[in-house]
Amino acid sequence: MRRPIRVSVVGAAEATEEEHRLARELGGVLGTAGAVVVCGGYGGVMESVARGASEAGGTTVGILKGNDPRDANPWISLPIPTGMGDARNALVVLAGEAVVAVGGLWGTLSEVALARKAGLDVGTLGTPPTPGLDLPALGTPAEAARWALARAHERRGEMPPGGSGLSRRRQ
Amino acid sequence: MRRPIRVSVVGAAEATEEEHRLARELGGVLGTAGAVVVCGGYGGVMESVARGASEAGGTTVGILKGNDPRDANPWISLPIPTGMGDARNALVVLAGEAVVAVGGLWGTLSEVALARKAGLDVGTLGTPPTPGLDLPALGTPAEAARWALARAHERRGEMPPGGSGLSRRRQ
Amino acid sequence: MRRPIRVSVVGAAEATEEEHRLARELGGVLGTAGAVVVCGGYGGVMESVARGASEAGGTTVGILKGNDPRDANPWISLPIPTGMGDARNALVVLAGEAVVAVGGLWGTLSEVALARKAGLDVGTLGTPPTPGLDLPALGTPAEAARWALARAHERRGEMPPGGSGLSRRRQ
Amino acid sequence: MRRPIRVSVVGAAEATEEEHRLARELGGVLGTAGAVVVCGGYGGVMESVARGASEAGGTTVGILKGNDPRDANPWISLPIPTGMGDARNALVVLAGEAVVAVGGLWGTLSEVALARKAGLDVGTLGTPPTPGLDLPALGTPAEAARWALARAHERRGEMPPGGSGLSRRRQ
Repeated sequence: MRRPIRVSVVGAAEATEEEHRLARELGGVLGTAGAVVVCGGYGGVMESVARGASEAGGTTVGILKGNDPRDANPWISLPIPTGMGDARNALVVLAGEAVVAVGGLWGTLSEVALARKAGLDVGTLGTPPTPGLDLPALGTPAEAARWALARAHERRGEMPPGGSGLSRRRQ
Repeated sequence: MRRPIRVSVVGAAEATEEEHRLARELGGVLGTAGAVVVCGGYGGVMESVARGASEAGGTTVGILKGNDPRDANPWISLPIPTGMGDARNALVVLAGEAVVAVGGLWGTLSEVALARKAGLDVGTLGTPPTPGLDLPALGTPAEAARWALARAHERRGEMPPGGSGLSRRRQ
Repeated sequence: MRRPIRVSVVGAAEATEEEHRLARELGGVLGTAGAVVVCGGYGGVMESVARGASEAGGTTVGILKGNDPRDANPWISLPIPTGMGDARNALVVLAGEAVVAVGGLWGTLSEVALARKAGLDVGTLGTPPTPGLDLPALGTPAEAARWALARAHERRGEMPPGGSGLSRRRQ
Repeated sequence: MRRPIRVSVVGAAEATEEEHRLARELGGVLGTAGAVVVCGGYGGVMESVARGASEAGGTTVGILKGNDPRDANPWISLPIPTGMGDARNALVVLAGEAVVAVGGLWGTLSEVALARKAGLDVGTLGTPPTPGLDLPALGTPAEAARWALARAHERRGEMPPGGSGLSRRRQ
């Protein structure tokens, strides 16, 4: 069995129209590529990225603050309730093999920082949660998806599909 | 989108031959029925139930103690690393809509108790983690799978497939 | 600096009169002995053991499910809000060097099991959370306190005060 | 019983000489004022702030990543092992009523962000974990301590000692 690539997408529950659009397109490209999209499972960026991925036929994981799976947005295929509140932010990023932040404020910044602390690659799409972060700024949803998939394959010691490398390690 | 039923299966990392057999058969019936099997992601009962489910084409989630997804057993399709140690036991059971314990010792007993505390139905298959628990004892893997699926559908306010009821609430 | 001994006391939020009395007396003996009493920080056994310890001049730690320290019972000198719900049960027991369960139901049983899984000694006072547990049954609050202090000192590789041994390892 | 004020101090395990000095002085002022100092319990800033507070007679809480209380630095009077890895960062800040960040990198940034997300006031002392954060920059350890104590009293709806207000709410 080969595990599908997992990409965590983080961003605010209250998103701008532009952030909704970016997130949904990002989810669409990731879902089309067969990646599992992991997010916090509620509204805003979390809902739009899950919607995009789900509409493209992808699997969507929502790692929830609360303990009721019915609180997940309707595009989450696999809700993981934690009951842990914001301490679950650490889990949202650990579940991915690369992380993209779409907009966001303090909650998103905590996820970005926890991801970097855990050694995961993080890129930003749209306005980053705080200026001055030393992170790659990704120009479009398609670029963000390509970047995240490449980082995730790299983490497994693989070349991404289309590359010439061989998988060196099962993830 | 209809979310697949999720069943958590808990049990010891060091299992007897009989427990391995029970777990694998249980996983097989659950996977065949289209349920997602959630477990702790490592060896013993966790590995056998995931193997059974995976061989039947099912999705298997491993909610890991550690933070390295590569430590999951090879039958886990979706590893969720937590880095939380045994505090993750609460999450293993919260992720299911019904829980089956196959054998097990203190770790399994903690999962059983956390599940009951959270209001989830728990049944036992094989020797329960401690005598005297007031829980349904399930006689065979097939019976355990039917019981768990029925409890999970009930929790959603549905009749299980084959019943005459209508889904009343999306989960 | 020598760290004070820490004893975790677990039990139900809804306790009988007898359990309240046992918990308060247990807290009193532990507080008099200079031990820090750790508990879940809310009502029932948690409140009575904290009250007994506090009245005896002891320090009381409440490791809370929620994230508001003001929800701790009034006898908690140091609230530790976690926002983690029942997943905090793992932390309540890890914070102690020995554990006493006073009565209790599923929540308490989860703490007992998590403590044993972590290798901590656990004794019961009053009716245990489930029959058939292989744990020492302690007859009185005073006996429970002596037992817990002895186990905690042992864990540090020390003889309890009054013994002839020397501290071998700082805790 | 009146609960002592709790201040969380966060910062990197690998600190500069200057950060060590700032943290130790900050701990000293907080300890002298009777505040409990909460930190992550290991080396670097965590050790120096605990040392300063402990030398001033204060209580020091270390909320540990691991599950062994003996891994806490020697100036921690109350170790709280969690076994939760970096997910414990959420708990380090929730345990305080105000937060000061001394230097720090990604881990500290996650704590700053989680604290702000939880509505706690956060100030920085020394070089902040990332430029561009919209947070008060505190000039000296004494100023940082005064600021944190004032924010914590404010959170309780009190005037700090020396003020003319009355406590309105027990914390």
